[in-house]
Amino acid sequence: MSESAHRAIGVAVLGLGNVGSEVVRILREHSADLEARVGAPLELRGVAVRTVGADRGVPEELLTTDAEALVARADVDLVVEVIGGIDLPRKLILSALTSGKSVVTANKALLADHTGELAEAAEAQNVDLYFEASVAGAIPVIRPLTQSLAGDRVTKVAGIVNGTTNFILSAMDETGADYADTLAEAGRLGYAEADPTADVEGFDAAAKAAILASIAFHTRVTAADVYREGISRITAADLEAARALDCTVKLLSICERISGPDGRERISARVYPALVPLQHPLASVNGAFNAVFVEAENAGRLMFYGQGAGGAPTASAVMGDLVMAARNRVNGGRGPRESKYANLEVAPIGDIPTRYYVNMQVTDKAGVLSAVAAEFAQHGVSISTVRQEGAGEGAHLVVVTHTATDAALSETVAALSKLEFVLAVTSVLRLEGTEQ
Amino acid sequence: MSESAHRAIGVAVLGLGNVGSEVVRILREHSADLEARVGAPLELRGVAVRTVGADRGVPEELLTTDAEALVARADVDLVVEVIGGIDLPRKLILSALTSGKSVVTANKALLADHTGELAEAAEAQNVDLYFEASVAGAIPVIRPLTQSLAGDRVTKVAGIVNGTTNFILSAMDETGADYADTLAEAGRLGYAEADPTADVEGFDAAAKAAILASIAFHTRVTAADVYREGISRITAADLEAARALDCTVKLLSICERISGPDGRERISARVYPALVPLQHPLASVNGAFNAVFVEAENAGRLMFYGQGAGGAPTASAVMGDLVMAARNRVNGGRGPRESKYANLEVAPIGDIPTRYYVNMQVTDKAGVLSAVAAEFAQHGVSISTVRQEGAGEGAHLVVVTHTATDAALSETVAALSKLEFVLAVTSVLRLEGTEQ
Repeated sequence: MSESAHRAIGVAVLGLGNVGSEVVRILREHSADLEARVGAPLELRGVAVRTVGADRGVPEELLTTDAEALVARADVDLVVEVIGGIDLPRKLILSALTSGKSVVTANKALLADHTGELAEAAEAQNVDLYFEASVAGAIPVIRPLTQSLAGDRVTKVAGIVNGTTNFILSAMDETGADYADTLAEAGRLGYAEADPTADVEGFDAAAKAAILASIAFHTRVTAADVYREGISRITAADLEAARALDCTVKLLSICERISGPDGRERISARVYPALVPLQHPLASVNGAFNAVFVEAENAGRLMFYGQGAGGAPTASAVMGDLVMAARNRVNGGRGPRESKYANLEVAPIGDIPTRYYVNMQVTDKAGVLSAVAAEFAQHGVSISTVRQEGAGEGAHLVVVTHTATDAALSETVAALSKLEFVLAVTSVLRLEGTEQ
Repeated sequence: MSESAHRAIGVAVLGLGNVGSEVVRILREHSADLEARVGAPLELRGVAVRTVGADRGVPEELLTTDAEALVARADVDLVVEVIGGIDLPRKLILSALTSGKSVVTANKALLADHTGELAEAAEAQNVDLYFEASVAGAIPVIRPLTQSLAGDRVTKVAGIVNGTTNFILSAMDETGADYADTLAEAGRLGYAEADPTADVEGFDAAAKAAILASIAFHTRVTAADVYREGISRITAADLEAARALDCTVKLLSICERISGPDGRERISARVYPALVPLQHPLASVNGAFNAVFVEAENAGRLMFYGQGAGGAPTASAVMGDLVMAARNRVNGGRGPRESKYANLEVAPIGDIPTRYYVNMQVTDKAGVLSAVAAEFAQHGVSISTVRQEGAGEGAHLVVVTHTATDAALSETVAALSKLEFVLAVTSVLRLEGTEQ
């Protein structure tokens, strides 16, 4: 390998958690390969941490608690942000970009709210802001959407992009256990955090949906634009009912183009647990794996599958971005900019065409089915299948609808629960991955 | 959408077949979106065809039979080559690159033999040579390997990258029909060409393996370096035997890092039909779909799935490259260059660690199994499972081995066929996608 003609590229890593320590390891272990690929050596200038110590697996002289000073160093060209949180990383990233440094971040929560501000700072200095690691860990998703599909028209993205909830739903499906026990087990195994709210209530998946919708539809979408339901109300009975319908339950981050009745194009970004038919490629994505399904006008259906979390997989995505940002320093040029020209309106959840699965506890007598069917008909919702389960006090009706607007369906469910025959609407889930 | 500040980018399309006509359609139908994404209008300057006519779906004044003159036009900045073949496209692409134009090509056969020469011409003029469409159609594979995994160490790539053979093998598995009938059916349905040799004998898959190995391992690999077996000797009995082993048969393009006994790292690129366990993600890739499975040190296992052929899907990949090349014209910068620094040696097939499935017609009497087992032992090959099928004249032994070198396995098979008890070795296939 010949020596690079270009001066070294200085790298600062902010944060030394699971991902940061893997990034530092790769930078140190694979320096010769990285130099050959970049065309210049990548040199680690320092790592910002909360506490400096000899036990951090990094030479102590590289550690600093002064992240701001590290970012400001004249010999730092590229900044990797893997701290997490919002305020501190936002400040540090803006400070890096403003002083002409390129930034690689895995921070989906920050990006989901502040991509606009960060992208403008990158634009002003003509530097890179890369964030492949922010969605689905090691799986290339951002680059395929922004580059490979740059000449196509993406119509839908549906992803399993949260490992914790997928682990829980897969385990519930496999064991028949209920939600609370499975969540506790996930915590014991390290798949759920002490406070699992961000994962189980869908906030993490919603942040990723905002990022995916932004790049897929060339429109600024923030987390506040994303309709969100988590998995904490999913029961063992839901998974059993799903199986009876040849489905499983997955927490999906869905981004979609919607054509309104006036022909005006809008988009939707939403997160909820949904029934997915077993033959759909997303149904077999189990455990902590992630997958992103993409439909585009010309490409047709694509799926990207792999490890969506964990130190080394996420560090792989960070390192890919870091090599690209470093190559741009060496060769000139920049990675893709923010693309928001389409500026499409985000449709409210009520306008979204969807299918429902409704499970009701009913009085077991003649006339129930016709009363229930009449209620659907009155709201203009067409029924695909209806099945009675159990008898006597345990009698249930399970209805699967054809496509209608979410508003019509939710009004139907509200009306059903007022029917005399309907003792309780025990479960309502949307059905995805089917036509009609 | 505001008007672009940049002058128009002129595009020449060489070839107006399935892919070329889709590229032209997209350029014309989506010009506003493309302009917004590029930052300048993409203007189609002309299309090179063999015969100019009013019935080609393109304004006649855009058609020309003089491809060389079209490429040479001063107002052409980007050239899309979708002619196919070797000599003519090689000459046209070199001529485009040499005169400072960026090139997008889908031509795997050309790239598998001439990437070096083409990359050097691109390098000399500091222009782009993009070829995402050359492997697996619409599925982003080149970009993930060269960019997303640029900071990782790819250890294996295993792809189903030929739609014709995958259609035939899927159909044989489903219907139980034999090879010849299924090939004929594939021809009738448009999945096999009149002369199917390039597909069924693995030449197409081998060209793609050369491209994948080159970029995955930063080493120039040409089609001549790829070991190749096609599917024309696969029988209905093989697929039945595969099913009995919970496997199916797939034509795989495999690129792998091999560590020799001396610790020296080498690589392998090979194409053959192999048994794949049904639970492996590649096993469920059926019909004309393609998928590429990647293992990398930090990313772990990834899979990319989608439509590997067809006019619109391939055009989607071409258009992604075209938008990227055009953005580079507008913003400065270049896409990734050829990376061949690792310059690893390609190991011969005999040195590759693999597993075999061997099906023998044997004399149905005592002692056969021990004689067969002794032969394996003598060559240092360990047996994983052995099963007797049928009886009397139809008696078969089906052996699945543990991992050994391909040379040891092929010597074992040669020795077996000389045993008195062994009437015929009816089938030998490798087994992939399992450990040990």
